Amino acid sequence: MKMPTPDASVLARRAEIVNALRAIVPGEGVIVERDEMRVYETDALTAYRQLPMVVVLPTTTEQVSQVLKYCNELGIKVVPRGAGTSLSGGALPLADGIILGLGKFNKILDIDYANRTVTAQPGVTNLGITTAVAHEGFYYAPDPSSQIACTIGGNIAENSGGVHCLKYGLTTNNVLGIEMVLMNGDIVRLGGKHLDAEGYDLLGIMTGSEGLLGVVTEVTVRILRKPETLRAVLIGFPSSETGGNCVAAIIAAGIIPGGMEMMDKPAIHAAEEFVHAGYPLDVEALLIVELDGPEAEVNHLIGEVEKIARDCGAVSVRVSESEDERMVFWAGRKAAFPAVGRISPDYLCMDGTIPRKQLPLVLNRMTEMSAKHGLRVANVFHAGDGNLHPLILYDANKPGELQAAEDFGADILKLCVEVGGVLTGEHGVGVEKRDLMTHQFTEIDLNQQQRLKCAFDPEGLLNPGKVFPQLHRCAELGRMHIHRGQIPFPDLPRF
Amino acid sequence: MKMPTPDASVLARRAEIVNALRAIVPGEGVIVERDEMRVYETDALTAYRQLPMVVVLPTTTEQVSQVLKYCNELGIKVVPRGAGTSLSGGALPLADGIILGLGKFNKILDIDYANRTVTAQPGVTNLGITTAVAHEGFYYAPDPSSQIACTIGGNIAENSGGVHCLKYGLTTNNVLGIEMVLMNGDIVRLGGKHLDAEGYDLLGIMTGSEGLLGVVTEVTVRILRKPETLRAVLIGFPSSETGGNCVAAIIAAGIIPGGMEMMDKPAIHAAEEFVHAGYPLDVEALLIVELDGPEAEVNHLIGEVEKIARDCGAVSVRVSESEDERMVFWAGRKAAFPAVGRISPDYLCMDGTIPRKQLPLVLNRMTEMSAKHGLRVANVFHAGDGNLHPLILYDANKPGELQAAEDFGADILKLCVEVGGVLTGEHGVGVEKRDLMTHQFTEIDLNQQQRLKCAFDPEGLLNPGKVFPQLHRCAELGRMHIHRGQIPFPDLPRF
Repeated sequence: MKMPTPDASVLARRAEIVNALRAIVPGEGVIVERDEMRVYETDALTAYRQLPMVVVLPTTTEQVSQVLKYCNELGIKVVPRGAGTSLSGGALPLADGIILGLGKFNKILDIDYANRTVTAQPGVTNLGITTAVAHEGFYYAPDPSSQIACTIGGNIAENSGGVHCLKYGLTTNNVLGIEMVLMNGDIVRLGGKHLDAEGYDLLGIMTGSEGLLGVVTEVTVRILRKPETLRAVLIGFPSSETGGNCVAAIIAAGIIPGGMEMMDKPAIHAAEEFVHAGYPLDVEALLIVELDGPEAEVNHLIGEVEKIARDCGAVSVRVSESEDERMVFWAGRKAAFPAVGRISPDYLCMDGTIPRKQLPLVLNRMTEMSAKHGLRVANVFHAGDGNLHPLILYDANKPGELQAAEDFGADILKLCVEVGGVLTGEHGVGVEKRDLMTHQFTEIDLNQQQRLKCAFDPEGLLNPGKVFPQLHRCAELGRMHIHRGQIPFPDLPRF
Repeated sequence: MKMPTPDASVLARRAEIVNALRAIVPGEGVIVERDEMRVYETDALTAYRQLPMVVVLPTTTEQVSQVLKYCNELGIKVVPRGAGTSLSGGALPLADGIILGLGKFNKILDIDYANRTVTAQPGVTNLGITTAVAHEGFYYAPDPSSQIACTIGGNIAENSGGVHCLKYGLTTNNVLGIEMVLMNGDIVRLGGKHLDAEGYDLLGIMTGSEGLLGVVTEVTVRILRKPETLRAVLIGFPSSETGGNCVAAIIAAGIIPGGMEMMDKPAIHAAEEFVHAGYPLDVEALLIVELDGPEAEVNHLIGEVEKIARDCGAVSVRVSESEDERMVFWAGRKAAFPAVGRISPDYLCMDGTIPRKQLPLVLNRMTEMSAKHGLRVANVFHAGDGNLHPLILYDANKPGELQAAEDFGADILKLCVEVGGVLTGEHGVGVEKRDLMTHQFTEIDLNQQQRLKCAFDPEGLLNPGKVFPQLHRCAELGRMHIHRGQIPFPDLPRF
């Protein structure tokens, strides 16, 4: 993993830069002490650590604008950061860059039930949106596992999903408008409370752009009314293949469940031992299917799903008969990551997406890979939309195991691409999958993506070293197939 | 309305250009005769006409690539065209440009029921997708009124909607992947059969880009299973305001109808006289609400909608009791445009979008404007998502009426922006709304959009004169707030 070489001329001017930032963000909004900056040195992908040059925590859009304008003029790199829950190293600092933390942008600005929208500052947590409207019976649909901590601004950067995105969409399907600051300091508003928009879909580009295009300073999202009824079915299968086929059959029947999650045997056992959800232990694969909507519809569809499951060869089918029981069904799935953490000293959480019908093939191939690399894998995934989260179990203290785990992970992601899928579903590329991008995209594709990057940040100062394996100078991108002007990425220190 | 001045140096080389195009596209794929080019001189916005320099009709992606590469190198403008059903002049030719017609790209390439996708060439009609999968019980959801004629490639260019987009989304929500050719001839594939994607959302930018960014040569869309049951309710109101409030109340109740269309009195009467749908004639506003899904759900929700309607002050409520009756309910709405064409020599079909809760206010203000401009207006609109289609009635043979109609239309669109909406919902900006873009967007916004345009087409050769009121040279866009280098738009001849 390589990151840009620190710019000695920038580091030499650190004192001057800190003073300039303090003039823009007064009080305690500029952090320079090593110990205080330590909390910013990594994100939830903890394999990499790096202290930033300085951390700045603005409180207004105007301050963000001034900070970016200043950095743009002086050629200082900027890494935007929400709560730092990224799983791909998206918020990893740079030694010669500032961390622009949005933690103080934590207010709900407007709740509009008639238009069914909430407008919030980007540092409000994902769950904070739902909490603000729950008393009126509304909620915000995308629900990443980190929803207690992750911010709505970070959700936009990563286009976050969750267990309900098959039916309700990813972040990109639920964001209606943003205010953002360009690297040159200009403040742009995209979208709004209206459902249709015009002009190029800049809001769509910003969603999932991993902090490389601009800094979001306000967010308007769609809220939904809580479904009248929610029921879940636990379905056990004698093989991953029958489970995969059942997922395809449910979708083919025209049923779109609110959630459709699958776990394999290692994940089932780890979860059951941890939270005692009552999962069957004699099955190879477990599917949780949740239906939501009016009671009449849910009861009808639950029956259909049961029928399809038995036709697919399910060996156990259990329908939740109360809200408590439904919550218990989910408890195991939601605790699957920490549960796996209890049975292995370390694990690597992968994130790839495949066309749904490739599920059985990919599960079989993963079993073969597990034998080849000599490492166990537990599978927990969003079956409905083909988003896999294989957890590769390893022990960092055993020589070679981290490397083997990373090789195994890379093989899984390459397989996803090979069967017509993509490298990531919702965790982003960040630094983790950066060097695999050439397996997904041709040089032409990557150059075209970088031309977009140039349209927002021509000097390449926003979050460099993430997403793109090589950054080309914008002036060079016009001349296709010419590779002068590449910015080299030396090795990043690993701790 | 201004368009770029024809480039005399390009026109002088017409014979050479035609020969070069014939070398790329052999046979009858290059059209140069004035009479044969006549069919390409306008689109469904017939107020403007212009013959192109030459029309080229390639049959392969490789030919498209070679044509674009050639034009890029020689600085020749290119206007891509599907079926020419655009309502905003998006496919209007340029005197010194070529029309790149995609009509021969008319094959369905792949039908994949397991992944629920259809892959087609861009010249396949919107309805052609549904027709190809209807025998298996599937359909393609977005259904613009022109669906018999309009192409799926054109749908991507305009991000087309239809009466079902509240529940099922616009084109952008139903397209999974495309193959496209950049102006430099490079062929790029975006997305695929997988649901999640990675990298910048280039597919999202292309959707609704109105032919300014690239030429789509292959499309993969999501297909849906036909709902088990469909039922519609006709609801009459004593005022537009009560109708608007009822729309808000249905949405606030958490019901998302498959379609929710509203018509005002002039539209009701015109439609009823034309197709005899049995619409009530003593109401001021008529709402058609369609519910779809499992029978149990539909019957439940129909009851809820009836109850809400009566609470809102509806004076008549009629539920379809058979599939035939449901089709009759829709016949009037679907024929509303031609029906209005029967009661007025000419009409201007506008297209603006507002936040839903502004419906009553906007309808009232439109009545005032109608008096001010001395022209009648009939309103037909997608009430559920706030997309208005006011039809302004005028007589082109009466001096000043076309101008009055255009002024009235501009006032309506400015009102949409004023109440927090946008200039267009699904018809695009094209030439029609180009000069109103400054009412919607600031100079900073428009510059940022043009930087994106530069990332795809740095020489500004793809469909110039559309969408942007002024095109800046890409090199100038880096220096904000500096306006040297604008390309002037002289008047476009009107016939």
